[in-house]
Amino acid sequence: MTGPDAAAGPGSPAPGDQFVQSLARGLSVITAFDADHPSMTLSDIAGRTGLTRATARRFLHTLVELGYVRFDGKWFTLTPQVLRLGTAYLSGLGLPQIAQPHLEQLSARLGESTSAAVLDGDEIVYVARVATRRIMTVGITVGTRFPAYATSMGRVLLAGLPPEELEAHLARTDLAALTGHTVVEPDRLRAELDRVRAQGWALVDQELEAGLRSVAAPLRDRDGEVVAAINVSTSTHALPELPREYVDAVVATAATISADLASSGIRA
Amino acid sequence: MTGPDAAAGPGSPAPGDQFVQSLARGLSVITAFDADHPSMTLSDIAGRTGLTRATARRFLHTLVELGYVRFDGKWFTLTPQVLRLGTAYLSGLGLPQIAQPHLEQLSARLGESTSAAVLDGDEIVYVARVATRRIMTVGITVGTRFPAYATSMGRVLLAGLPPEELEAHLARTDLAALTGHTVVEPDRLRAELDRVRAQGWALVDQELEAGLRSVAAPLRDRDGEVVAAINVSTSTHALPELPREYVDAVVATAATISADLASSGIRA
Repeated sequence: MTGPDAAAGPGSPAPGDQFVQSLARGLSVITAFDADHPSMTLSDIAGRTGLTRATARRFLHTLVELGYVRFDGKWFTLTPQVLRLGTAYLSGLGLPQIAQPHLEQLSARLGESTSAAVLDGDEIVYVARVATRRIMTVGITVGTRFPAYATSMGRVLLAGLPPEELEAHLARTDLAALTGHTVVEPDRLRAELDRVRAQGWALVDQELEAGLRSVAAPLRDRDGEVVAAINVSTSTHALPELPREYVDAVVATAATISADLASSGIRA
Repeated sequence: MTGPDAAAGPGSPAPGDQFVQSLARGLSVITAFDADHPSMTLSDIAGRTGLTRATARRFLHTLVELGYVRFDGKWFTLTPQVLRLGTAYLSGLGLPQIAQPHLEQLSARLGESTSAAVLDGDEIVYVARVATRRIMTVGITVGTRFPAYATSMGRVLLAGLPPEELEAHLARTDLAALTGHTVVEPDRLRAELDRVRAQGWALVDQELEAGLRSVAAPLRDRDGEVVAAINVSTSTHALPELPREYVDAVVATAATISADLASSGIRA
């Protein structure tokens, strides 16, 4: 995110007649903040967004006025109000509210962490999570993203794509080896996705992180389309093999949530 | 959120010379979506934001181009990319990453849900959570907000405010009775906050929701200022009285997290 157009993302059309560049630039100022840059000076922000200092100052001033950013005389920092933007998505989603009690039951029954995620481009994004003990080196919260191809929920979501979308995904995605176990050959991944589609669940064994094994099943809307996925993640140290009971529990819980989604009539 | 200036919030100065109205309007389009309005037509959005249809169309077109909104020919809906905005705040915060393993230990030890929250205006906002079983009728996730005065974490955060800020809060806040137990008299609340400040923890017994009891303790930065709070919530049905052990565990965990925060040197 180093240029003014970076917020548009790859593949977006160039700003057209109706494109409001001020909005794009303002949003790029918000996304310029991250774990490595939680507080920045005006110069830092100008540098990271590619905006001039004068332009960056106008956007920061506006964000301070609106309550999204605070300024202590030198450092600019995001405020908790920024969460309202993400919450606008989550509360409209419906899925987290419907899935959460089922994920809590599943987590309590197995004693393991459970999650729900949706596909956003080539990544999965967590939209609900019930955490028990920490088995990953990186903390996962709602909003956390991982590459789809190396995760059990991602495999379930990719297996649910129309064939042409899946091929487009495989064509543009660099299958990097995140561990020594990651499937990085497109043909092997394609075969694995065929298996996932046929059996109705996906198992990923230490392909995202050593010591982490995860099993996922799809959530379907009333038309049978895959709209999200849930999973249970386990430690290979605590459980040398994944019990078949875990697979059955995830598949059964996914079916229950899917039925709730369908009967609620809300979008996933 | 029904007018173009609604995003500015109460008490904000009127848009001045440097104010970028396009950014304010664009953000108001995002926050116009919520649980009751997850998908909207152009007319719906114009109505909820107070923008003309032509203006609303330009902002929506821009948000679609940027990947924050999708359009199916009639309905506009937020995409998971909106979570990137909220994540920019959370990942920069540092506190969730530092608090999470401690909250997980506390949750495992007591078998209860634990959370961390910060104050945003007159509300608390959850920034981390470890959920066990569901004891509230409303699901809580990161980003959930409650009025500060009726929650244990809010009491701890209010007790940590400078006196003039606390008085301003009390002057502008309508203390509504959320249950039959809610403290709604400013003098009684002020006395309770004095007690919280002196004893270093807050207990709220069914003031937010019947059947819910919660105990909270403050997280302090290296200057001793209260920057956040953690809590444990329990069911009055499962536990007729709150064990003293719970209070001690919350206070001890808060002290440990505060020490980690201070030694990390990151902002809370």
